[in-house]
Amino acid sequence: MPLNVYLSGEIHTDWREQIIDGAQGLDVTFNSPVTDHAASDDCGVAILGAEPDKFWHDRKGAMVNAIRTRKGIEDADVVVVRFGEKYKQWNAAFDAGFAAALGKSLIILQQPDHDHALKEVDAAALAVTRSPDQVVEILRYVLTGKLPG
Amino acid sequence: MPLNVYLSGEIHTDWREQIIDGAQGLDVTFNSPVTDHAASDDCGVAILGAEPDKFWHDRKGAMVNAIRTRKGIEDADVVVVRFGEKYKQWNAAFDAGFAAALGKSLIILQQPDHDHALKEVDAAALAVTRSPDQVVEILRYVLTGKLPG
Amino acid sequence: MPLNVYLSGEIHTDWREQIIDGAQGLDVTFNSPVTDHAASDDCGVAILGAEPDKFWHDRKGAMVNAIRTRKGIEDADVVVVRFGEKYKQWNAAFDAGFAAALGKSLIILQQPDHDHALKEVDAAALAVTRSPDQVVEILRYVLTGKLPG
Amino acid sequence: MPLNVYLSGEIHTDWREQIIDGAQGLDVTFNSPVTDHAASDDCGVAILGAEPDKFWHDRKGAMVNAIRTRKGIEDADVVVVRFGEKYKQWNAAFDAGFAAALGKSLIILQQPDHDHALKEVDAAALAVTRSPDQVVEILRYVLTGKLPG
Amino acid sequence: MPLNVYLSGEIHTDWREQIIDGAQGLDVTFNSPVTDHAASDDCGVAILGAEPDKFWHDRKGAMVNAIRTRKGIEDADVVVVRFGEKYKQWNAAFDAGFAAALGKSLIILQQPDHDHALKEVDAAALAVTRSPDQVVEILRYVLTGKLPG
Amino acid sequence: MPLNVYLSGEIHTDWREQIIDGAQGLDVTFNSPVTDHAASDDCGVAILGAEPDKFWHDRKGAMVNAIRTRKGIEDADVVVVRFGEKYKQWNAAFDAGFAAALGKSLIILQQPDHDHALKEVDAAALAVTRSPDQVVEILRYVLTGKLPG
Amino acid sequence: MPLNVYLSGEIHTDWREQIIDGAQGLDVTFNSPVTDHAASDDCGVAILGAEPDKFWHDRKGAMVNAIRTRKGIEDADVVVVRFGEKYKQWNAAFDAGFAAALGKSLIILQQPDHDHALKEVDAAALAVTRSPDQVVEILRYVLTGKLPG
Amino acid sequence: MPLNVYLSGEIHTDWREQIIDGAQGLDVTFNSPVTDHAASDDCGVAILGAEPDKFWHDRKGAMVNAIRTRKGIEDADVVVVRFGEKYKQWNAAFDAGFAAALGKSLIILQQPDHDHALKEVDAAALAVTRSPDQVVEILRYVLTGKLPG
Repeated sequence: MPLNVYLSGEIHTDWREQIIDGAQGLDVTFNSPVTDHAASDDCGVAILGAEPDKFWHDRKGAMVNAIRTRKGIEDADVVVVRFGEKYKQWNAAFDAGFAAALGKSLIILQQPDHDHALKEVDAAALAVTRSPDQVVEILRYVLTGKLPG
Repeated sequence: MPLNVYLSGEIHTDWREQIIDGAQGLDVTFNSPVTDHAASDDCGVAILGAEPDKFWHDRKGAMVNAIRTRKGIEDADVVVVRFGEKYKQWNAAFDAGFAAALGKSLIILQQPDHDHALKEVDAAALAVTRSPDQVVEILRYVLTGKLPG
Repeated sequence: MPLNVYLSGEIHTDWREQIIDGAQGLDVTFNSPVTDHAASDDCGVAILGAEPDKFWHDRKGAMVNAIRTRKGIEDADVVVVRFGEKYKQWNAAFDAGFAAALGKSLIILQQPDHDHALKEVDAAALAVTRSPDQVVEILRYVLTGKLPG
Repeated sequence: MPLNVYLSGEIHTDWREQIIDGAQGLDVTFNSPVTDHAASDDCGVAILGAEPDKFWHDRKGAMVNAIRTRKGIEDADVVVVRFGEKYKQWNAAFDAGFAAALGKSLIILQQPDHDHALKEVDAAALAVTRSPDQVVEILRYVLTGKLPG
Repeated sequence: MPLNVYLSGEIHTDWREQIIDGAQGLDVTFNSPVTDHAASDDCGVAILGAEPDKFWHDRKGAMVNAIRTRKGIEDADVVVVRFGEKYKQWNAAFDAGFAAALGKSLIILQQPDHDHALKEVDAAALAVTRSPDQVVEILRYVLTGKLPG
Repeated sequence: MPLNVYLSGEIHTDWREQIIDGAQGLDVTFNSPVTDHAASDDCGVAILGAEPDKFWHDRKGAMVNAIRTRKGIEDADVVVVRFGEKYKQWNAAFDAGFAAALGKSLIILQQPDHDHALKEVDAAALAVTRSPDQVVEILRYVLTGKLPG
Repeated sequence: MPLNVYLSGEIHTDWREQIIDGAQGLDVTFNSPVTDHAASDDCGVAILGAEPDKFWHDRKGAMVNAIRTRKGIEDADVVVVRFGEKYKQWNAAFDAGFAAALGKSLIILQQPDHDHALKEVDAAALAVTRSPDQVVEILRYVLTGKLPG
Repeated sequence: MPLNVYLSGEIHTDWREQIIDGAQGLDVTFNSPVTDHAASDDCGVAILGAEPDKFWHDRKGAMVNAIRTRKGIEDADVVVVRFGEKYKQWNAAFDAGFAAALGKSLIILQQPDHDHALKEVDAAALAVTRSPDQVVEILRYVLTGKLPG
């Protein structure tokens, strides 16, 4: 049983690498959004031409990125959404809602101080984790039945 | 052509009332989450019994609220999501993602200072509005073909 | 927002009547399986002719009952499944699984001594209740935002 | 025509091994839940942290297991559900209902003394079998057209 | 629980009238194909212009009739398909397959001499009936829980 | 059997009125896009604010109109698409493709000189008509079984 | 673009072999029902035990065969349904209806004397063919763009 | 993350080759309609027999072509639709609508003079491009995160 896992959300720390490294040897395919922040912001105008209005500059980029993120979520069995300490991160919550409506297995990765603010998101998830390691342990258990320790 | 409209998001101002008042005379049915903040937070434990751990206190409430919010979104033709000036509002973005995945017509109501943070959410919407009045004008136009002025 | 609620499971006590009575005044339509035990067991052969083999006797009846139960579940917004103290009640768990796969809001009604045996079923539900009254309070809150007390 | 078969239900006897052994040489991929009973019960708390309340202990585990069981059922062409002689086995009946709602081909494996209690479940199945061998013979016939003997 | 029932198949006897008459007082809406044989055969060319080639004459009519039959089947909770004694009746079997794929509750009405020829169709049905009266009794039981006699 | 009919396409002649008038007395609900050409072109900027770039001016309007057209098509049983003598009319063909993918019954209304250019669109339709009157006759036949003359 | 093609219907002539032979070199995977008539009739009782009543004998077999035929149709891009000169062949028409409802591309293979009786089935198809060779030529054209001759 | 891309629309220039060449080294599978204009027009009658009436000549061909185009669109993650300078190109707009209704990521390739006529089509797309090169750059960015230059 191979698993396809999409890693959504925060792009400022190396949590994706920690999960991918930890999951080595497991039959998992990982996908992610483009995590190069500047490229992600400017992809629309870089390819399709400049926009004087920042609103449409952002729109063009968000739509190009959506080609990748929708494919990533639609192909996934499991969607992991990481909420970091800073920023609004509405795209992370949007991805979580999108994945939930498609019936994907949702794993949230966040610290306890956000528990109350994320309670609706958490309630749609099958696991709320506190570290990349816990995500890895879930994937390992799901695929092999082995628990840590 | 009657419209079913779900009003999601910020619960601290009277934007819902403004839209509902403005839309009087139009063939629209409005639904909303429970907007009594205390009731919404405590509904789970008030009905199903107290929890010593705040995490499960929140979970019980979020799940009971989900009965209403999922029904509201699934029944809707149009989902309006309002992002206010404050708070994380991840449940609003979650609802937007949920609605988008179900193919609902999405209208976002937010101020320009959030444009960049909401660019992925906006890109999934059919309109980005700045006031309840603009939402009303869209509903009026969609139902009657009449423009303001 | 009217709610359509299907009441599945145990047929030996008056829990359905308690819920229906308690919900008077709320905009709820209730549906149930046929709760006349003898009729439910024999409907197949009574209408379509006797079977010497009990296996096919049961099959004919279960298929006729399925016309009603599938319609009831498919039309429902909320499926309440009651597990009683006795019997295998596999049809109740089957209904819960069927409703879960269709994305219905699931409410389980059962006593704590069955918590462990029902953990997978409970984990698919939005509420685990201990009395018909709690079910009524959830429906009231979902429809009106009012909490008990 | 390769077949993907999910083996749900009773975990106390070696029926899964009998089917997998018997089906050697056939183009079948088998998946199952985690059948290590202790691991299955404790996976939630072992990975995500202890819970003082057994109800939430069970919930955490059931949700982690659901990542695997839902994937297993959703990927399957055929879902075999085995009901043993003992225990409530509500998760088995839940899986059967879930699979039926998704339109999977359902094969039930159970002894005749449970026929009446399982009549609704059986009525949703394409075959009711009495031994792992019969399941193997069905898979062989479906894939090769060859009958036993 | 109102039922929407589509009556498909044989158009040479009054079985539809018998069912509709028998079901008086029950909360059932009946729909049927056009049962005027000449109109059904010629509707395409009568409205859209003559065709010299009988193949396209038939095609035009079959497509116009499909507007009604697809709507009828898609709206139905229960599809009753009657196979008469004569003719190929492939459109009846086609409707049965169409309804089965949509997950409709299927009731077949046919005489025992066709049992073997209809075994695949019957196997997709929830009831195989021998008279319009049995169909009526099923509808009555499904809606009221009352058995005949 | 009431029918919901969406009238898409050309907005320069009174073909919609002819169909609606002709269908008086039939159980049909008609919906259409906004047919006020100026309003349809400018609705986006009139409500949401001017755009210096015509491309985004058009985009804003097209998205607001999509709220109505998608609702109209999704609610419809039958989608009639009229291609006039002039203009590109790509939105009409887009609506036809959208309706076809949703499995709607499609009726095309066009003159023979466009037959070859419309052959892929026609091939997805259940009727190709030459006059509003033929559309009316189809609706009448579908609802009443009566043919003209 | 590989194609998955299901060959349904008549089992008394070698039309399947003709198509499979003719399609050699094309990127097509073919699937079929079990075409050993005796095995197909008796598979249920041969595996699951004898039935004194021919009705249930047939039912058991039809349900086992359905595991294969449903998988075959659901996996297919193209469903070819062959109607022979003799017999009722209601299972062929049932398969055609099932495939049509799932949106499969349908090719019918039949002789002109059945045109009128098959008009509803033909009207749901993308091609009506008269020989296995024509089916092969369609598959070749669809995959390579090459026409015969 | 491999991408499946369908290239729909104009067949008179080498835009498909430009995209396919430009995308070399990327993990993309491309599919297209048959672009041999004569073969595409005549495939129906060439395989299935001549038709005296051009309308049915066209119909037969359009239906055979639909086997390929529907498969191509349904399998695609991304549908690129090219509108050329000339002709009605209603099949291109039809494909765009079909793809939009299936939730495919849509990329339009057209010149600015068609912007107004294509505004509804563009509004359903995630990118409006002016050259095959821009399409290639989008695919490269989506798959690798790399921007041009």
